[in-house]
Amino acid sequence: MTRTKVIDALGSTDFGKEITVKGWVRSHRSSKAVDFIALNDGSTIKNIQVVVDPASMDADILKSITTGACIRATGTLVESQGKGQTSEIQSKEIEIYGLCPTDYPMQKKGQSFEYMRQYAHLRLRTNTFGAVFRIRHNMAMAIHRYFHEHGFYYFHTPLITASDAEGAGEMFQVTTLDLDRVAQSGKVEYDRDFFGRKTSLTVSGQLEGELGATALGAIYTFGPTFRAENSNTPRHLAEFWMIEPEVAFMDKEELMDLEEDFIQYCVRWALDNCKDDLEFLNNMIDKNLIQTLQSVVNEKFVRLPYTEGIRILQDAEKAGHKFEFPVTGWGMDLASEHERYLVEEHFKRPVIMTDYPAEIKAFYMKKNADGKTMQGTDVLFPRIGEIIGGSVREESYEKLTGEIKARGMEESTYSWYLDTRKYGSCPHAGFGLGFERLILFVTGMQNIRDVIPFPRTPKNAEF
Amino acid sequence: MTRTKVIDALGSTDFGKEITVKGWVRSHRSSKAVDFIALNDGSTIKNIQVVVDPASMDADILKSITTGACIRATGTLVESQGKGQTSEIQSKEIEIYGLCPTDYPMQKKGQSFEYMRQYAHLRLRTNTFGAVFRIRHNMAMAIHRYFHEHGFYYFHTPLITASDAEGAGEMFQVTTLDLDRVAQSGKVEYDRDFFGRKTSLTVSGQLEGELGATALGAIYTFGPTFRAENSNTPRHLAEFWMIEPEVAFMDKEELMDLEEDFIQYCVRWALDNCKDDLEFLNNMIDKNLIQTLQSVVNEKFVRLPYTEGIRILQDAEKAGHKFEFPVTGWGMDLASEHERYLVEEHFKRPVIMTDYPAEIKAFYMKKNADGKTMQGTDVLFPRIGEIIGGSVREESYEKLTGEIKARGMEESTYSWYLDTRKYGSCPHAGFGLGFERLILFVTGMQNIRDVIPFPRTPKNAEF
Repeated sequence: MTRTKVIDALGSTDFGKEITVKGWVRSHRSSKAVDFIALNDGSTIKNIQVVVDPASMDADILKSITTGACIRATGTLVESQGKGQTSEIQSKEIEIYGLCPTDYPMQKKGQSFEYMRQYAHLRLRTNTFGAVFRIRHNMAMAIHRYFHEHGFYYFHTPLITASDAEGAGEMFQVTTLDLDRVAQSGKVEYDRDFFGRKTSLTVSGQLEGELGATALGAIYTFGPTFRAENSNTPRHLAEFWMIEPEVAFMDKEELMDLEEDFIQYCVRWALDNCKDDLEFLNNMIDKNLIQTLQSVVNEKFVRLPYTEGIRILQDAEKAGHKFEFPVTGWGMDLASEHERYLVEEHFKRPVIMTDYPAEIKAFYMKKNADGKTMQGTDVLFPRIGEIIGGSVREESYEKLTGEIKARGMEESTYSWYLDTRKYGSCPHAGFGLGFERLILFVTGMQNIRDVIPFPRTPKNAEF
Repeated sequence: MTRTKVIDALGSTDFGKEITVKGWVRSHRSSKAVDFIALNDGSTIKNIQVVVDPASMDADILKSITTGACIRATGTLVESQGKGQTSEIQSKEIEIYGLCPTDYPMQKKGQSFEYMRQYAHLRLRTNTFGAVFRIRHNMAMAIHRYFHEHGFYYFHTPLITASDAEGAGEMFQVTTLDLDRVAQSGKVEYDRDFFGRKTSLTVSGQLEGELGATALGAIYTFGPTFRAENSNTPRHLAEFWMIEPEVAFMDKEELMDLEEDFIQYCVRWALDNCKDDLEFLNNMIDKNLIQTLQSVVNEKFVRLPYTEGIRILQDAEKAGHKFEFPVTGWGMDLASEHERYLVEEHFKRPVIMTDYPAEIKAFYMKKNADGKTMQGTDVLFPRIGEIIGGSVREESYEKLTGEIKARGMEESTYSWYLDTRKYGSCPHAGFGLGFERLILFVTGMQNIRDVIPFPRTPKNAEF
């Protein structure tokens, strides 16, 4: 008999119909008269209750169906008497696909997230991680749909690269050289390496994305990105996913409109499409979660020049607000606590901060006429701080090469990038969004290792 | 004035209205009375014609607007007199964003694909590559939409891994060890490496995908995959994108239904959404392109056991058909020419070949009761040969560990994978699709380096 997904069985009012569900046992309660098996198949956070007459089955077999076991249950869909659920199954027949030994690590409820991280392959079967990864899926769908509807093309920039987009170092090297042989021979022969040169994993697809935008008009990347930073914090991953749209002919105002519209679309998508999972997380993880999401969707974002932001922070300090990192004045790089103060306490709304000092930003950003500030447009969010980093790009060949030289970067490495400014240069702008930061925001989870299936961090590449 | 995209200007019949378009000059023809500038902005393969009265502009400035230059043109939308186009712009005002020097490498028409590969960053501005990458975008959208509509979750499997999914070797190593230091010290100290062990770039996300499917029910991956094969052919890339769906409770028949329905959906999406680009490619690249795409969408796929396939190939050989690689009989691995013979000459329809000899397939596939064959289900396509490789997965813990041992693989490396069979094991199945193979098929292009923006191949990691 065709399988009915649990989400469809729970949504059905076709009582009296015989159906088949398949899934994993979340709990099994026995009494003399009746057994209740809560079954989940990943299609929803809710379980369907399978009601079994113990007289209908061999007692030992029925007893073997413990938490984590995988079964098929066929029976009649009936209206549920229990509260909080609409339908259940009066089971006529159960088939066991796989039993679950008592050393199953996800046996007990209420294990810590730290404990569960050791079993990243099995934590996927818990309520919390089911919710997180269904939401993660939905956020990816929202992103693709938004850009597709707005005429952007999904553009695959390379992962293995010979350049360093941020000029920042901290990259993983990629090689086919036999390291034992390198050690024995005492020589690093890059002409024998796969690409005939030293190559690394990309830290950003932006520069290649600009090549796409200045040909196809509007593109976005959505792919893995790497940082070999030795940071053991709840905010850092060595391997994470980035979204980087890039748009020809876009100016600063239009960029801010895009950032705001885009991220509100994503959060609205979660509110519209992930109701059950969000309610669960609101209940278990963060009692303000749904309210925070709604506030972001309903409010216009503040647009705040950096210089004005510094003034507000200085006033706050004068008025007695204590920051861990003091507000040293114009030219400083804001810490997350400063960003959150502006968003959560001062404005109580998301903020797009603009026109940063040139010194603290990347070489490719467009300078303002004042020569001191750059057309950056970062979006600051409650709980997260900076969630989007954007800017107008410098389109003048002369200014851009000047900046590259002034920063001591290798001009020849960027010749292909500079070609976009040499041949038919065009004004353009774009931004970057760390996907896991968005997922942290939307799920209310605290640790970035809990919003990606198999986190890569220092000393950890399990699974 | 707000920019109108070229695709919208061409689709508009709002004649007499003043509009602004922005883009790159594809050609500029001058005469005494009138100048014609063909402008493209990447939103469509079609150019809009900008008609300029040479008396209205400085002659030297007008002359400087050559192929590749980037401009804004504001003027009146009028009905076109030329055939094959509906509207054009009577320009009132032109602004130059970026001129294009005469050494622009994409100046001339009809350059070879090999030549253009050297300028992968600029070939994006040509008709052919514009068409290819708009179609590539559309295929990615079709894939995400198909799986979302069918209740699959997009699941991000790790790129950096300590295991080898196929047991095949040929992997890129990922390291933060300083190779010069390794050479000097004569030691490879993996405890000092970022992950504290030897790590590589993944060759497949399937094994981790199975962890997702046996928790969330149905997942798919869509991400970069790597092979360090030293193959300089039109079919091989060192970095390519794979789609790998994996479904709990799916059997062989359902898997074949999924494969057929999925790939027909993708090809139908191209026919429905990429008409102009396909017509261009049909005209310039492959005169049978659209007909081939239609045939795949309209025909039911043949379902052919391997044993029967071998018999047909042997009969063909007996009847005088010459294969480059002779048909040696049962147990042989089919070459692309054999697959294409079955599809293009014998059945004249796509074929799903099933039940391969166990020896030529991967360790994770489910064996049939005969002990000799495995429940593989590969889709064979015209022009491409194998486009999808699928199978039911072995769900028995004992059989799977037995196979791992028999193949001399390291059991401990796969302990997390085997846990899915240990705790609540469930029947499941899945397949893999090389994204670039799909794009080759849908675009009619011949070389895989021409369907990914920045190809990575031996000795080549430019851009």
